[in-house]
Amino acid sequence: MDYSQKSLVIHEEHRGKIELVSKVSVKNREDLSIAYTPGVAEPCRKIHENKESAYTYTSKGNLVAVVSDGSAVLGLGNIGPEAAMPVMEGKSILFKEFANVDAFPICLNTQNVDEIIQAIKWIAPTFGGINLEDISAPRCFEIEDRLKEELDIPVFHDDQHGTAIVVTAGIINALKIIRKRLEDIKVVVNGAGAAGVAIVKMLLNLGVKDIILCDSKGTIFEGSSDVKYKVEIAKVTNKKLLKGSLKDALVGADVFIGVSIANIVTEEMVQSMKKDAIIFGLANPTPEIMPDLALKAGAKIVGSGRSDFANQVNNVLAFPGIFRGAFDVRAKEINEEMKLAAAYAIADLISEEELREDYVIPDAFDKRVVDKIASAVKEAAVATGVNRI
Amino acid sequence: MDYSQKSLVIHEEHRGKIELVSKVSVKNREDLSIAYTPGVAEPCRKIHENKESAYTYTSKGNLVAVVSDGSAVLGLGNIGPEAAMPVMEGKSILFKEFANVDAFPICLNTQNVDEIIQAIKWIAPTFGGINLEDISAPRCFEIEDRLKEELDIPVFHDDQHGTAIVVTAGIINALKIIRKRLEDIKVVVNGAGAAGVAIVKMLLNLGVKDIILCDSKGTIFEGSSDVKYKVEIAKVTNKKLLKGSLKDALVGADVFIGVSIANIVTEEMVQSMKKDAIIFGLANPTPEIMPDLALKAGAKIVGSGRSDFANQVNNVLAFPGIFRGAFDVRAKEINEEMKLAAAYAIADLISEEELREDYVIPDAFDKRVVDKIASAVKEAAVATGVNRI
Repeated sequence: MDYSQKSLVIHEEHRGKIELVSKVSVKNREDLSIAYTPGVAEPCRKIHENKESAYTYTSKGNLVAVVSDGSAVLGLGNIGPEAAMPVMEGKSILFKEFANVDAFPICLNTQNVDEIIQAIKWIAPTFGGINLEDISAPRCFEIEDRLKEELDIPVFHDDQHGTAIVVTAGIINALKIIRKRLEDIKVVVNGAGAAGVAIVKMLLNLGVKDIILCDSKGTIFEGSSDVKYKVEIAKVTNKKLLKGSLKDALVGADVFIGVSIANIVTEEMVQSMKKDAIIFGLANPTPEIMPDLALKAGAKIVGSGRSDFANQVNNVLAFPGIFRGAFDVRAKEINEEMKLAAAYAIADLISEEELREDYVIPDAFDKRVVDKIASAVKEAAVATGVNRI
Repeated sequence: MDYSQKSLVIHEEHRGKIELVSKVSVKNREDLSIAYTPGVAEPCRKIHENKESAYTYTSKGNLVAVVSDGSAVLGLGNIGPEAAMPVMEGKSILFKEFANVDAFPICLNTQNVDEIIQAIKWIAPTFGGINLEDISAPRCFEIEDRLKEELDIPVFHDDQHGTAIVVTAGIINALKIIRKRLEDIKVVVNGAGAAGVAIVKMLLNLGVKDIILCDSKGTIFEGSSDVKYKVEIAKVTNKKLLKGSLKDALVGADVFIGVSIANIVTEEMVQSMKKDAIIFGLANPTPEIMPDLALKAGAKIVGSGRSDFANQVNNVLAFPGIFRGAFDVRAKEINEEMKLAAAYAIADLISEEELREDYVIPDAFDKRVVDKIASAVKEAAVATGVNRI
C-alpha cells in the first residue's frame, strides 16, 4: 500500500487527525465549579481588568491558528477550504508533536483578500499567533503584510518564511564548505511565488548582494512587470538588469534555488554555473534537476524537498521552533531578526567537524532543532523589543 | 480557598484549559508521509471531488465551534471576547468530557450582528456545528435565525435552547407528579432574554396553551412593545391580554419560571398561585426565590440553577448529548423536533417509581444522560430528514 492509500485509511479510521482535550479535571461537581461556573468568573474578571492577563489565564498564549483559504494547497492548487483541511490538520499536529504548540486549523470560506484579513482579525482574540498556509501569491503578500500591521500577535506565512529560513540555513552552511562570502556570490532563484519572493528577501537581509529572480517568462528586472510585488523585487535585485531566460541567468551563478517546476534545469545549465555550484531544487515531488544528475554535472552541494536525498529542505525544521520561541516570550510579532536568528540556529546545529557536502541541513527529526531555534528566536525577540515577557 | 481563588490558580497553572492533540502517530518519516505530505494529498483530492467526504477524512464531523462575542457572559455582562475565553474553554472541555465532542472556543472581536454572522460563515468549513454562547438578546435571536438559514450544519444557541430543554424536562416530570395536563396549565415566565424567550417557544411547541412572559416592565401583551421579538412573542402568548406586574401575572398560575434576577418572587406571590405550584427560579447565584422559602410558601416542586438544592437546571444535561446525537447522523441542523426529543429523553431518565418532588430533573453527572439524549436526538433527526447518514 502506498502513502496515498495508507493516508486514506488512517484519515478515515480516525476521522481526521486532531482532538481537543482538557488540561484540567472535570469529573465531579467540585471540578465543574472550578473549571466552569461559578469559579470561572474570576479569571474572566481578571482579563476584563487587563487584557494581557489572557496570556496567564487562557490557552491563547500557546495557541496558533493554521489558516488557509485552500487556494494553493500542496501541489494540488486551488481546491478550496474543505479539501484543504487534511493539510491544515496535518500542520496542526506537527506544531504539537514537534514543539508542544497547540494549533487549530481554520479553513476559510472566502478567497477575497479583504475578507480573509477581516475574518482573521475577528477571530484573533482566541489566538496567540496566526500561521498562514497555502494561500496563493500574490494575495498572500498583502494578507500577511496587512495582518502584521493590524494585529499585535505574530503572523507568519509558512510557505514563504519557513522555506526561506531552511534554505537560508543550507546556504549559510554550504558557503562554509566552498569558502565563499555572502557578499561575493551570485544567486539565481527560479519561481516568483510565495517561497521564491521570501527567499530573495531573506537572502538580501542576510547580506547577499547579487540575486536574480526568474519567473516563467525569464529574469525579473526593473520594467519587466507591472505587478506590484515584482516591481518591488526588481528594485532590489538584478542590478545589472539582465534580460533573458533562466538559462541565461544561471551562467556564472554560484547558487541556484528552484521553487518552481520539475526538470527545468539541465546538466548543461549546471555546467554553466561557477565551480562548486550550490543547487537547491525544491519542486515537489520532482525537483528542478534530480540531485544525482546535478552532482554528476559538477554541482558541489545539492539539496531538495525530498526525504530520499541529502539536504532535505523541510519546513518542519523551522515553524515549530519559531512559534515555540515567539510564544515563550509572548511576542507581538515574528520579525526579520527572529527569522534570521532561526536560520543561523538551524545552520549552527551542524558543527564544523560534522559539516559535509551531503549534510548542510540537519535532519527534520533531529531532537535538538526545536530548542535551539526557540532559544535563538526568543533572544532575537527580546533584542528587538517585541517580547511581552 | 473558595472557587474563585481555586479557579484562578488552576487557570494560571495550566495556562487555560484546552489542548490540541494528535489522533495519529507522527514520530518518524513514515508517519509524516502518511499524516502529512505526500500522502495527505489523497484525502484532499477525495474531498475536492466530493465535499461531503470532509466528514469521512477530517475532524469536521465531530468538531463544534463554541462562539461568543463576550457580550453577555455569565452574570458578568459585556466583558468582551478576551475575557469570555475562560468560559468558552470551559464549555469546550465539557463537550469533550461529557460526550466526546471536540469543541473549540472562538471569541470574536466584533459585536455587530452582521459581522458575527459573516465571521461564522467564513470559518464554517472547519466545523460540523456551531454552538453560540453568551451573546446578548435580542442580537442572539437574529444571529441564530440567519445562521440556521444560511449554513448546512447545526447552529445552536445554548443559552436559549439548552436552558429551555432542561426546564421543559423538569416541567414534563413535575406535571406527572401533580397530575395536570400541559394544555390545562398556566405558566408565567419572568425575563425576556435569550433563555426566557426560548423557554416560552419550547413550551408552546410542547403543547402549553396559556403562557405569560414578563419583562422588567411587567407582562408582555400585544401592543406592549415595538421590539420585534417581543411583538412576535406577544402574538402567541398572553391571549387574555393581561396587563400588570409579575405579581399580577402570578395569581392563579400553575408554573413560575424565572430567568431574571434575585429575590423578586415573594412567599405571598407563591401563595397567590394555584395549589401544587411549580417554581423554577433560575437566576444565578441567587434565585428569584430561595427554594426552601418557596417550599415553605406552599410550592410543590421547586428547581433552581444551584447545585446545592434539588432539581438543578444545568445546561450540561443537554448540550453534550444533543451535539453527540446530531453529529452521529451528520445532521444538517438541530430542529425543534430534536430539541423536544432531548427534553423528553431527559425527563424519561427518571422512572415513575423514582419520580419525587425533589427529583424531577436527573443529576448532571448521571452517566446515562448523554447516550439517552443522543439516541433520541438521532431518531428525531432521521424522522425529520435532516440527517446525512
